[in-house]
Parts: sequence; structure tokens; C-alpha cells
Amino acid sequence: MLNIGIIGAGRIGKVHLESISYHVKNAKVVAVADPFMNDETRAFIEGFGVEKIYSDYKKIIDDSEIDAVLVCSSTDTHADISIEAINAGKHVFCEKPVDHSVAKIQEVAKALEAHPKTKFQVGFNRRFDHNFAAIRKAYDNGAIGEAHILKITSRDPEPPNPAYIKVSGGIFLDMTIHDFDMACFLTNSDVEEIYVNSAVLVDPAIGDQGDVDTAIITMKMSNGALAVIDNSRRAAYGYDQRAELFGSKGMVATSNDTLSSAVISNENGVTAEKPLFFFLERYMESFSEEMRQFVDACENDKDVAVGIHAGIQSVKIGLAAKKSVEEHRPVLLSEIQ
Amino acid sequence: MLNIGIIGAGRIGKVHLESISYHVKNAKVVAVADPFMNDETRAFIEGFGVEKIYSDYKKIIDDSEIDAVLVCSSTDTHADISIEAINAGKHVFCEKPVDHSVAKIQEVAKALEAHPKTKFQVGFNRRFDHNFAAIRKAYDNGAIGEAHILKITSRDPEPPNPAYIKVSGGIFLDMTIHDFDMACFLTNSDVEEIYVNSAVLVDPAIGDQGDVDTAIITMKMSNGALAVIDNSRRAAYGYDQRAELFGSKGMVATSNDTLSSAVISNENGVTAEKPLFFFLERYMESFSEEMRQFVDACENDKDVAVGIHAGIQSVKIGLAAKKSVEEHRPVLLSEIQ
Amino acid sequence: MLNIGIIGAGRIGKVHLESISYHVKNAKVVAVADPFMNDETRAFIEGFGVEKIYSDYKKIIDDSEIDAVLVCSSTDTHADISIEAINAGKHVFCEKPVDHSVAKIQEVAKALEAHPKTKFQVGFNRRFDHNFAAIRKAYDNGAIGEAHILKITSRDPEPPNPAYIKVSGGIFLDMTIHDFDMACFLTNSDVEEIYVNSAVLVDPAIGDQGDVDTAIITMKMSNGALAVIDNSRRAAYGYDQRAELFGSKGMVATSNDTLSSAVISNENGVTAEKPLFFFLERYMESFSEEMRQFVDACENDKDVAVGIHAGIQSVKIGLAAKKSVEEHRPVLLSEIQ
Amino acid sequence: MLNIGIIGAGRIGKVHLESISYHVKNAKVVAVADPFMNDETRAFIEGFGVEKIYSDYKKIIDDSEIDAVLVCSSTDTHADISIEAINAGKHVFCEKPVDHSVAKIQEVAKALEAHPKTKFQVGFNRRFDHNFAAIRKAYDNGAIGEAHILKITSRDPEPPNPAYIKVSGGIFLDMTIHDFDMACFLTNSDVEEIYVNSAVLVDPAIGDQGDVDTAIITMKMSNGALAVIDNSRRAAYGYDQRAELFGSKGMVATSNDTLSSAVISNENGVTAEKPLFFFLERYMESFSEEMRQFVDACENDKDVAVGIHAGIQSVKIGLAAKKSVEEHRPVLLSEIQ
Repeated sequence: MLNIGIIGAGRIGKVHLESISYHVKNAKVVAVADPFMNDETRAFIEGFGVEKIYSDYKKIIDDSEIDAVLVCSSTDTHADISIEAINAGKHVFCEKPVDHSVAKIQEVAKALEAHPKTKFQVGFNRRFDHNFAAIRKAYDNGAIGEAHILKITSRDPEPPNPAYIKVSGGIFLDMTIHDFDMACFLTNSDVEEIYVNSAVLVDPAIGDQGDVDTAIITMKMSNGALAVIDNSRRAAYGYDQRAELFGSKGMVATSNDTLSSAVISNENGVTAEKPLFFFLERYMESFSEEMRQFVDACENDKDVAVGIHAGIQSVKIGLAAKKSVEEHRPVLLSEIQ
Repeated sequence: MLNIGIIGAGRIGKVHLESISYHVKNAKVVAVADPFMNDETRAFIEGFGVEKIYSDYKKIIDDSEIDAVLVCSSTDTHADISIEAINAGKHVFCEKPVDHSVAKIQEVAKALEAHPKTKFQVGFNRRFDHNFAAIRKAYDNGAIGEAHILKITSRDPEPPNPAYIKVSGGIFLDMTIHDFDMACFLTNSDVEEIYVNSAVLVDPAIGDQGDVDTAIITMKMSNGALAVIDNSRRAAYGYDQRAELFGSKGMVATSNDTLSSAVISNENGVTAEKPLFFFLERYMESFSEEMRQFVDACENDKDVAVGIHAGIQSVKIGLAAKKSVEEHRPVLLSEIQ
Repeated sequence: MLNIGIIGAGRIGKVHLESISYHVKNAKVVAVADPFMNDETRAFIEGFGVEKIYSDYKKIIDDSEIDAVLVCSSTDTHADISIEAINAGKHVFCEKPVDHSVAKIQEVAKALEAHPKTKFQVGFNRRFDHNFAAIRKAYDNGAIGEAHILKITSRDPEPPNPAYIKVSGGIFLDMTIHDFDMACFLTNSDVEEIYVNSAVLVDPAIGDQGDVDTAIITMKMSNGALAVIDNSRRAAYGYDQRAELFGSKGMVATSNDTLSSAVISNENGVTAEKPLFFFLERYMESFSEEMRQFVDACENDKDVAVGIHAGIQSVKIGLAAKKSVEEHRPVLLSEIQ
Repeated sequence: MLNIGIIGAGRIGKVHLESISYHVKNAKVVAVADPFMNDETRAFIEGFGVEKIYSDYKKIIDDSEIDAVLVCSSTDTHADISIEAINAGKHVFCEKPVDHSVAKIQEVAKALEAHPKTKFQVGFNRRFDHNFAAIRKAYDNGAIGEAHILKITSRDPEPPNPAYIKVSGGIFLDMTIHDFDMACFLTNSDVEEIYVNSAVLVDPAIGDQGDVDTAIITMKMSNGALAVIDNSRRAAYGYDQRAELFGSKGMVATSNDTLSSAVISNENGVTAEKPLFFFLERYMESFSEEMRQFVDACENDKDVAVGIHAGIQSVKIGLAAKKSVEEHRPVLLSEIQ
């Protein structure tokens, strides 16, 4: 049984609490800390039988009963808390991005080198999604031969509020970072070069924050494949999450998930359901699966599915994307330190 | 918190134990009884923290801590155990069919009349399936107008073993009974008349047991709609569970669920996944949802979603189907007492 | 070059004139006759370079330049004109049904026996449709093994006017006759027994004519397969023409054709196009293909694709269907003489 | 009746000859010229009743009976022959590309300015395809709001032979030029800037010719939309021709056409047909429709559907794409003169 402490009781912290309680065997959340702990949150946490509820995360770091820590706090604290937890001998699951600065993430990497037995997993939950996993499986099986073209469509149903945009690190580190990790995962490869074609088409307020809301991003992967991601902050029909991998022997593609397969035919046409609304609906099962695998890695000393390399690469790609927009040119990943 | 005792620890009893433990709030399995309790089963049950594990179901009936009983024993014991539990003041969830004899089910109905506060739900889990529920919702919303034609396709991936066929009550009471209940649920109506066109095409051994393995069943519903069910005991591509409801203003139809939406295009064609293998894979979520609603009905004194009427009707339809085969003619439901 | 005379310049006669002129090689329409020939029709026919335009079809029968005759007149004249044409040494393509009376069709069969070199094809155009042909091809290839269950969905977008209903011979000889022929074609088998479950749900005026507008028809085929057809005279979403053949090794199924594959996703859902409106839109290419094959059979002394046996069987099945409704019981085809 | 002369009796010239003969009203091919006229080609042409068959195209230019000329000769002769035909007072339909040099196409434009009544249509047949036309129609109808992201997938089933690659002008002027025209057509806009990410992944022999065989091309359109095309010279599953247009109110997307809608379900999965093999199968109907509209424009003095502007733009975009590859940077269309 893995005893887990969750640091940060915001939306994603609550998701993990519920996942572990209901869907993960051999693990138990024994403590939750959040600096803004309030009565409602406390009641929610207690509902899962958690007894240790704190404002100060250090109580979790110092708790010898706790084997593993989930870092679900604000992004700027991810790296420091991770390092503290690693140094306290705990396994760490850290939400994405590990940090907006590559140097900072490399400090985490250094802490890990000093603790070779410690497990550190980054929260790229989409790797555990049934659809994306099926693409990778088909690729690994040789069903499509060598990878030539990867296409990822990733569009949110609605933009975050402007206040969040400001602290988000921009679309590439906030939203596309998942797609960057998917590009690496689906092609089993790293990014070598990136070029971004972007615009503000959804909401001028996003442009006022110095960000973009629509983008087509093309990349060269280190295995020779070409990749393209298209992003929008607002798809009128909901959360659009598709991918296709085209190779020398064929193609594997996935479509959106829906609440049911019901199709209504009437005088207006033949109408299927919209995609599941947003990530909490669409990726809920993947949050459970990433926890199951993290717990399994900790309990059975296995390699984690998403390690620090993925944490560093995804942020480097995001920074290269920003640089491509700023300098209006293709940018090599090797330019980002 | 509803304290539940499960009677019968076979496949479906275990499903409910796991569902309640992981997916149902406000309920707890406190006891499980099975006359053939063995070490493996006992270990499985203990894994969910259940402390009271018995061979004799009467210990559950007599346990005043227990609020509700799940009757998951062999079909021939369903009615008697249900009546005992009802008379002991417990809510009852009874697996389908309640019995092979209508008279016996009506004894349960009588016991319920004497306990008007008692909840009694029959295990027609498909009513809680996301796809079938979406059909009914579209119908209730008026999206397809008045019901004209209902079509249900229900094919198993493989036949049960011949030994089971013998005690199953035949395909209509064992397999089609779910589809009969679906026909009533999806059209929100009862069956008035039935005609069966059947054959032994899958396995002569099934015919040797006096049963059929392939059937097309047409019915007149009490609201005027026509309905058809087609059954096979063996679909080479897996569990085929589809329905469509056609009405004056349009049609709503559902297709099979798959593990992922991945489609592989290669020189052989464009290939999607097979349907989920069988009912444990396909309907797992519906088993949780039927429990949630049963618990909600018990805890909050609401009407159950599938009551004794459905239990009686489904068996009557099954018996009428058998009579139609035997007498090679359309049979009115009113002929079945 | 096959010289063709068309008898009957109604809707289907015009379709064949256009098909042959534009889409069929080695054939030429040289004459058209219609008792109700008017200026508009004459102009239409002249537009295809046809010089011989008559009111009296006998001028076509007597024209030694003409090799083959298309009988597109009213149903009650099909058999007599066919016999005249056969006796005059011409190949005959006869629209469906050959007649409403089996005895009458057998007179045509007798005339054909006396002219063994004469080609006689019945206008069951759906056999030449790309979708239905693909089902039969998959079956012939062994892709689905032995046939177990055939399902045909056949729904018109709107009922004919009541006046037509009266002379149509009823839904089974007018509309379902195509589906009966499909059942035989797709299973490569004859019908042995039929049972009809029917109702008047679309329009009471149809019931007033003694006809039904909604039906579920189940059949036993001579190869052991079970079959079901569902019919409606009015599908709100248009012409619904689907089939699936389920067998020991798998299933082959077809869906409706649309004008384009465009799918619009917006806040209301994910909407594809309605099926092509009605038979002229849906089956136009099959009308060309049936003519190509008829011309090929005539020119190269090959067997026709749809012979007099299909003409007789389809009407027998239709009459058995009527008898099943009247006598409310399953009817053997052998009861129909 | 429009009398047409076809210059060039290669594959596409023959397609037009057959289209006009069978599928286009009010037009007649009266002459065909080809410098490599042989017996087989001559027999093919005579089969359509064409009497004037020449080696020298000038006989068509000089023939006062001829109203319109189809320029289907080799690309390097398109512009000169077009100008001769325009100056001889004939309407011109010119295959794509009009020329590899923008200056040369502008000479054609100049000739047209001197003949304002003359119709000049460029052979971008995909504009007349049912699927792509449906996207544009949805966009024009406002169904998807303002255009944000256009995605075109265009993959050939097999690469041309290396000898052809050499004279083709490269992938962008040979293959992608259709997609460039589609990008303009579907967004009803011009291209402002282009960036190409490309590779040789299909066949090193293509690289040896200085060409690429795989590409992801992103563009900024003059209406603000972003666009992306992905190309491959070899898709193992056949000709892949899809597009989707995403906008402020929704998305419209099309999929590939197949020979039939048949889907086979068996133990290997659920398999639909591959896309129609290549452009002759996939776009045959669009070749007829472009001719119908060209004939209609000539006969009724209407604007052509694809004018000289499209001819110039598509080549400019192709040249900008080449420049982007050579200089490894985004290229403005305004850089191309």
C-alpha cells in the first residue's frame, strides 16, 4: 500500500484524490495540503476519509508515513516542492509543466540523480488515454511502418479567462505543452526543429496579453518524421482531441469520444453527439491510469511512464515555439538551453 | 450509508461487490454469502474489506445491520430469497430473471404489496447503459416523434457451454430476456403479441438441448409500434449490441462500443476495432449505474428504475416466445398467465 | 449495336432512355411508344436523337430494325406486351413486377421456353447497386461464411398518393417487392416461409385503401438463413436503404449514400448529410448498370442477371405476405400457386 | 452547341473527350490534335464520332467551326497554345499549371485583356468535386462562421516515375498546386505567406532529382485564416483526399470516397473499403462538372468558375513553396513576381 500526500487541492488535486480513492488499488491518500484550504475543500477531502488536512505542505514533506507526493500546486512552486520531496526520500508525481524554466527543471533532474531509487513522474496524462495509447501501440506493432507524418488536432471548447492567460506562460507552455508531449510520445522521438504560424482570431483580449489563440505548429522529429499540431482556444462544438500517424505502411487515426454513440436522423440531417466537453470529461480515465502506473512504478520499482526527460523536452519545445513566433523563423531545439 | 449484503458470489455477485466498493457512494457491502464459498472467493471478498463472509445466506437475512440485499444466487432461488428478504424488512435488488415462472414472480409481487416502503429492483442493467439511455432520452424528448419501428440487434460472441444451456431456461429466458426488457424500455410500452422465427445455425449441440441459437423475433407493442429483435449465440466479431428506434419524425440509433476510436488504414482497408468482447467489458459502467440508482432509491425513498412489473413482463414475453416457437404462430401476451 | 425500342415513356422509361443514351455503349434507342404521348414528352425523346416516336406500341413490336424492347408501361400490360415482343423475336427487359398474377407471369415463362435464344430481364435494378453488390460479393467470397441472418431496412421518404395506392397492388407488390428480390439476391436463395407484422402508422388514408404503411417481415430462406425486412412509407430523414448479412464468420453491412461526405460540427452536434432523397437519386447508377448488363447479355448471348425466376418468386413472396397479413399466420411459399 | 477542339490526346485529353461525349449537354468534340497521334489513340477518338483527327494542333486553331479549345498538351506548351487560341477568337480551357513561369502566365492574361469576351478556364477540377464544393458551400452559408484553420490532406497512392519527377517542376508545381488552389477556393482567399517543412521519406530516388516527397506546408491567408497542407507521394491505403475548415462557429470536414459503403466485421476487426484509388477514379465526376460549367460559361457568356487569377496564384504559391524549402524560412507571396 502506497501512502500518498497531495500538495495542492485545486481542480487537479481533487481529481487525483478521487481517482486514487475509487480507481487505484494499493494506494491511499493520507494527507492533503493547500495554503488556501477552506471549509468546502476540507469537507470534500474528508469525504474520502483523509484525516491529515493541512495548510502547510511542509507537514507532508516531513511526514515519514508518506511514501509519495503529488505536486499539484501552482506551476511556479512545482520544481522547489519536488526537490524538497525528493530530498525527503519521497517518490514524486509532478503536474505539468514542471517549470517554465529549463534551468529550474534541470535542478529537479540533479536532485533525482542523487536519489536513483526515487520515482519521478510528470503529469502528461494523455499518454494514458485509450485513443492515443492505441496509436502508439499500432506504431510499436509495426502496423503503419516508419513514421512520416504526425497530425494532432487540439482545440479547447473555450479560452481561459484573461487573468489566467497572463500567468499561464502563454498558449505553448499552457495548452500546447500537452500536444508537444504527445508528438514525442506518438512518434517515440524528440523534436529537432519547430516553426509556428499563429494568430489572434478567437479573442483580441488574448492578443492584448501578448499571447495568441490559434496556431499551426510544424516540427521535424529526430526520427525524420514531420509533425503538425493545430490549436484553437475555442471550438464551437467542444473539446477537439484527435491525432493521426501516417507511415510507410499505413495510417492510424483516432476521433473524439462522445457520451454515447446515439445518432439522430431527421429532416435536418444525421447528427451524432458533440465531443465530451473538456479535459475533465474527456480524460478522466487517463487520470486514473496515470496514477495506477505511478503507484505500480513506486510499489514495484519499475521505470515511470513519463520521466524528467519528457518534462524538460516539453518545456524546451514550448520555449522554442515562443521564439519562433517572436523571431518569425524556424527554431532548432538545440538553440534552447 | 446503505449497508448491503450480497447473496451469491458468482460472477455477477463479484461485479456488484466491486462496483459498489469503487463506484457507488453512500453504500457499503458488509456481508457476502455463498453456499460454495471457497478460499479464492473469500480472499477476493476480503480484498474489499468485507468482514462477514458466510456460506449460509440466512445469516444475511437475519442481520439487522443490513439494509439491502442483492440476490445474485442461482435463478431458481431468486424468488424465495427475495421474499424472505422482503419479509425481513430489507430492500432487494434481484438479478434477472426473477424466476422462470410467472406465478412465482407474482408471489414476490404479493410480498411487496405487504411492504409498500420496500424497494425492489430487477437487474436489467442495460437500462442504465449510456447508449440505450440516449435512445430513450431522444424518444422522451420528442426528437423522433411517435414510435413506429424498434430494432434491436443482440448477438453474443460465443455460446454458453451445453451444460448451461440445459438449465438456462432456453435462449428467450436467458439471453433475449434482456432484449425483451429493452424493447419495453426503449418504446416505453408493453408487448402485446410476439412471433418468433428461429433456427439452430451456430451449433447442433444447442439444438440437441431443445433450444435454438439464432432468432428473429417480431412484436407488436401496446403503443402501436412494431419491434424486432435479432439474436445469435455467436458473432465472429464479438458482442453486437445495437438498437434503433424509428418514429414519425426521425430515427435514433446506437452502434457498438470499442476500446478505442483508433482506425488503421492500410493496403487491406480501413479497419476499426471490434466491439468490446462481452457483457462484462461492454456493460461494466451500467452495473455501477444501476447500483447507484438502487442505492439512491433506497436511501431517498424514490421509485426504483426497474420494478417488479418489468420482472414479470420480461418473463411473460420469454414464455410467449417459447410458445410461438412450439406452436409456430403469433402468440398474444394475454395468453400467458 | 443493339437497337432498342422503349414501350412506355413515363418516369422509368425516360430514365432508361437517358441511361442508354449517355451511359451504355453498344446500344441505341431507336423508337419510343406511349399511348399518352404529348408534346413535352416528344420533345424530351427527340432531344436524345430518337426518330421513331409512336402512340401505338405495336409499331415497335413490328419493327424489324429493333432488337430489344423495354417494357415500361403500366403493370397490367407488362406480361401481354412481353409475350408479344418475345413472339416477335425480340429480347425483352420488363419492369417489375412482371404482373400481379403468378399465372400470368408463367405465361411469359412459357413464351420464353418457346424462344430459348431470347433474353428476358426483370427490372430489379438494386441488384446492380454498388452497395448491395458489395454485400453479395463478400458473401460469395466467403468473407462472412454461411448466411445466418439477413436484415434489410427499406423506408421511403414519402408515401405515394392515395390514388396510386389503390392500383399499386399494395405495399408488398409495389414497394417491398424490391426488398423481396434483394433477400433472394443477397442470400443467393429462395424464400420458404414468411410472416408479416404490419400496421398503419404513417397515414390513415393508406389504411382506408386496405393497405398498410409500416411492416416488419420475417422469412425463412431455403438455405436455412433467417431474414427480416422493415418497411415504412415515410422516413422523415429521407430514403433509407440499408442491408446487413450476418454469417458464421462475420457480417457485411452497408449504409446510405449521401451527396457528399461533408460533416458539420457545431454547438448542435456533429451532422452528416441525409441520405439521397429517393430512388431516382439513390439508384441512378444502378439503372445504367442494369442496362449495360442487359445489352451485354443480348449482344453476347450471355445469361441475364435477373431472369424470369426472380420475376415469379418476387410476386409469389408478395402474395404470401398479403396472405400472412390477412390470415395472421406464417405462410409457406408453397401455398402460393 | 459548343464545338470543341482538344489539343493533346494524353490521359487527361481522353478524359475530357469521354466526359464531353457522355456527360455534357450542348457541347461536341469535333477535332482532336496530338503530335504523337498513333493508331490506338486514333481508334479511341473515332469511337466518339470525332472526324477531325490531327497531328498538328494549328489545324484546330485555324478551324473556324471550332468555338472552344481544350489545351491538354505538355505544360511547357500551355501558355503559347492558349495565346494562339485566344488570338484566334476561341474560348480556352487550359490544364494546370498554365505554366511554371509567372511571367509566361501573365502573357496569357494580357492576351485575355485584349479579348474581353473570351472565356479562359484553368483545369482545377477539384473545385467541382462534391466534397470540396460542400465545404465551400457550408462556409458561404455561414455555417462555420469566420475561417480560422484550414487543413488539407493530400496524399497520392504512388509516386510518379523518376523520369516524370525531373520534368514535373517539383512536387509543389505538380502535385501540391491542386492543394494550393483548394486552399484559396475553400477559404475564398489568397495566400500571403508560406512555410514548408519537407523531407524525402518515400523514395531516395525522388531526393536524387532534387525534389521532396513528404511535406507539411503552412500558410497565412489574406483573410487572416491559417492553413496547412500535408502531402505524401505514397499512401499505402490509396489516394487520401480530405479537408476540414474550422471557424468561429464550427467546422466542416470531408472524408474519402469509396466504391461502396460495405463494412465487413469479422475476427480481425471492422473493415471499410480503401479510398478510391487515384484521381481518375476519385475525381471523374468533377472532370464532367468542370466541363459542364465551362460550356455553360462559353454558351451563356457567364464568368468562368476558375479564371486566370487562380492560374497565376497557384503557380506563385508553388514557387514560394520552393523558395521556402531552398531558403529554409517563411516566404511572402509578394516576394514572387
